[in-house]
Amino acid sequence: MTLNQTDFEKFFHPAHTAIIGVSAGDYKFGGTSFLMKLKQGGYPGQLYPINPKANEIQGLKAYPDLLSLPVVPDLAIVCVAAGFVPAILEDCARIGLGHIHILTSGFKETGLAEGKLLEERIVAIAREKGLKIIGPNCMGPYCPGAGLTAWGAIPGLSGSVGIISQSGGLTQRLTEYTSSLGIGVDKAVSFGNAAVLDSTDFLSMMGQDDNIRVIAMYLESVKNAPKLLQITKAVNQYKPIILWKGGESPAGAATATSHTGAMAGSQKLWQAFYRQTGVTRVSSMNECVDALMAFSLLPAPAGNGVFLIGGGGGNSVAYSDTFSRQGFEVPALSATTMDFLRRSVPTAGSIAGNPLDMWRTFIDADYLAQVLELGYGDPAVSIILVDRLIPRTAYHFPDLADPTPATLAYLKNRQPAKPTVFSIDSDGGDPQLADTGARLRAQFCKAGIPAYPSAGRAARALHHLYHYHVRQKREDGSAADLKTNS
Amino acid sequence: MTLNQTDFEKFFHPAHTAIIGVSAGDYKFGGTSFLMKLKQGGYPGQLYPINPKANEIQGLKAYPDLLSLPVVPDLAIVCVAAGFVPAILEDCARIGLGHIHILTSGFKETGLAEGKLLEERIVAIAREKGLKIIGPNCMGPYCPGAGLTAWGAIPGLSGSVGIISQSGGLTQRLTEYTSSLGIGVDKAVSFGNAAVLDSTDFLSMMGQDDNIRVIAMYLESVKNAPKLLQITKAVNQYKPIILWKGGESPAGAATATSHTGAMAGSQKLWQAFYRQTGVTRVSSMNECVDALMAFSLLPAPAGNGVFLIGGGGGNSVAYSDTFSRQGFEVPALSATTMDFLRRSVPTAGSIAGNPLDMWRTFIDADYLAQVLELGYGDPAVSIILVDRLIPRTAYHFPDLADPTPATLAYLKNRQPAKPTVFSIDSDGGDPQLADTGARLRAQFCKAGIPAYPSAGRAARALHHLYHYHVRQKREDGSAADLKTNS
Repeated sequence: MTLNQTDFEKFFHPAHTAIIGVSAGDYKFGGTSFLMKLKQGGYPGQLYPINPKANEIQGLKAYPDLLSLPVVPDLAIVCVAAGFVPAILEDCARIGLGHIHILTSGFKETGLAEGKLLEERIVAIAREKGLKIIGPNCMGPYCPGAGLTAWGAIPGLSGSVGIISQSGGLTQRLTEYTSSLGIGVDKAVSFGNAAVLDSTDFLSMMGQDDNIRVIAMYLESVKNAPKLLQITKAVNQYKPIILWKGGESPAGAATATSHTGAMAGSQKLWQAFYRQTGVTRVSSMNECVDALMAFSLLPAPAGNGVFLIGGGGGNSVAYSDTFSRQGFEVPALSATTMDFLRRSVPTAGSIAGNPLDMWRTFIDADYLAQVLELGYGDPAVSIILVDRLIPRTAYHFPDLADPTPATLAYLKNRQPAKPTVFSIDSDGGDPQLADTGARLRAQFCKAGIPAYPSAGRAARALHHLYHYHVRQKREDGSAADLKTNS
Repeated sequence: MTLNQTDFEKFFHPAHTAIIGVSAGDYKFGGTSFLMKLKQGGYPGQLYPINPKANEIQGLKAYPDLLSLPVVPDLAIVCVAAGFVPAILEDCARIGLGHIHILTSGFKETGLAEGKLLEERIVAIAREKGLKIIGPNCMGPYCPGAGLTAWGAIPGLSGSVGIISQSGGLTQRLTEYTSSLGIGVDKAVSFGNAAVLDSTDFLSMMGQDDNIRVIAMYLESVKNAPKLLQITKAVNQYKPIILWKGGESPAGAATATSHTGAMAGSQKLWQAFYRQTGVTRVSSMNECVDALMAFSLLPAPAGNGVFLIGGGGGNSVAYSDTFSRQGFEVPALSATTMDFLRRSVPTAGSIAGNPLDMWRTFIDADYLAQVLELGYGDPAVSIILVDRLIPRTAYHFPDLADPTPATLAYLKNRQPAKPTVFSIDSDGGDPQLADTGARLRAQFCKAGIPAYPSAGRAARALHHLYHYHVRQKREDGSAADLKTNS
């Protein structure tokens, strides 16, 4: 079955959704909680709870089965116990309902013969009846723009990120982070065991989708490696793909088998995959979110010279080390820049240079803007990091107005062509700093300026951004060469 | 000059402190802000501001010079401009004031001939008059137990950590983090250019100090490498030393020269240093704080088998990968443990095993305690990580009472011999999670249970703890062998 973007429309923008297996009683994970969350998130379409023993559930009319419904829903969310799933799929086929998400687990991932057989049965029905199925054993589709938020950030934030994932929990976290950092999600899909539709289907769909500008994938396994390689390579050339591969270690691979019933594939195979596709490879939730933020919000850097603006001698040394480890240069600045810095930075207690150790940048938005302008005009500089300390009791600062609004206004107006990011050191565990820091970060991010909770995380995200564009340029170059030769 | 612990007493527990160079006017960094912070932090000793043009400063009687003081202070904090420092030192010597902290910068670190000469002059006076000097160009001593908190966390938290650092800013952050995480500092010293006293003096002092059980060092340079190596090696055998070396990269080393006027030394030399001393090597603030927490709060692990308790299939896979990358085993559990888990964990949607994917551990303190007991009794397990998700809107949980107090009470009573840590995934940037997560972390840490903001950071800290004790055992073994042979 080869699918195109429109084949997925009903999964992400369903006008009518049936939930099969909703308990009429107390709170319960599954159909009951999915129905509750959809209502809570303001899903604008019609919801049809299916339960043979109830007339009304959560204030909605309940139906005994799919065949009793007044319409053919666009989407079925199947939450009944595993053994009942095949019969439900037959009902779907009978009424012409072709888009199905199976939340239920208890299939191949259990490692038991019964589960394996049930999953084979699902595949057979899907093939015979032409059903499009997400799952089983997954959270399914998520689309804040359509109010389809049964899980993940509720309310969701609509944006330009696409997420394809074999883990419901990790997808949920990704939607939360992207939402609170102001970058937002267009479509996310947790697809679990991938019995029918798999990563290649979703990737090729999101590759065609103009609303999606960057894609994050969490994979534990792959059904058709050559196909995934080919699609990933093609899409990554015009739309960055960030890949987090779970199960890299033998212990992780064994866990992946219990999680989604998948064989994780050899480390060697994956190394070849990374090399050949040029995909951006991450290995933790934070690295994934951080890269998403860079790809979503920043222009392509022209080179790898970083200008580090901040204060504190120790920080300056540490940040130089941090960016060097990620392959960046911390170059000498041009004569024009140094001339201004030497005039404005005191000899004692500060350092005029790159890094710039000048506390005034923390408190004086005009001065910071002047320094940024020098950076934007300096040929040695391709990327700028501004460290932004959070004022607190221990600091020897006078009480001053918060310079953040003025800095945000300047940057919004300036729209710099050189990637400019902030680091707000707040991830060390201090409750007050964590709160203040996270709010300050959100202020920057929501204004379209990536802000990271440490210089280390900023450096890693910029590393990914830089290398993606270096590779792209090289490939454009090759393409141009080919044209010249032909 | 060979010093012992008592020679430092007056630096950290001064009964009388003179601050030389305090402006009578507005807020200003230096003497003015140091005096203000000391008063704010509740310093219980006498404070003597020195200013030839004022009678009273911040409500305290001011003196024109050191010679006019009614007593000989234990400590002088010198904040006058660099050019005036030599004359102040002569005054100190004249009245018999031997413990001096020079805050002032503008010496060797400026790279200017004048600054270099001034620093040489300071060294000459110290040698001639037998003065003990911390600095110049540094924040000096910090001791919460003595109310000596002119910088760093204010109020400070007294604890068992010693900090030796060439960066005032980074030391400040370390005191804040250790304070908010409930591990506390006994003594910290920011010693800048190390013109007179250097890292070897402070290290040998803290090595002898029974109040200090673990030492963190941030160094940019070393004056006497063989001496530092010898002391580090000796102290690290009975008291863990965590070393963060700033200036590892060429760019960082160049910055270090501007920061503390130091030559950072070759990468090769430092590699040999790490190998020969067995010191715990970290390369960021978070890694340093995380290791401090492990060394301060955890017993020695007997082996490297980790039991990962938590929930979510994706998390389980990711955590297996994370701990494998740090050299840990995620072993199969004993028959007894598996028997209990198979009986209590549902086949669908959870995973009985290691990692344990069982959401009940998040919400049911009694169940978690049962699982922990199995881990403590399981010979395959040496270390336990419990993942503790923060409940929020997106989660499909019923509203339940917070299980944290019961879990803390159980652990406090249990005092497990196997290192037990929590991870509370909250460092990704969500403002609400950052706040809730940081408070939850603090609750655990203050109860003596290390809690990390991600499994990755927990794994790295445990890696350091494990390798310190492996090395110690090997050296004990060698020592035992030597005894047998002699």
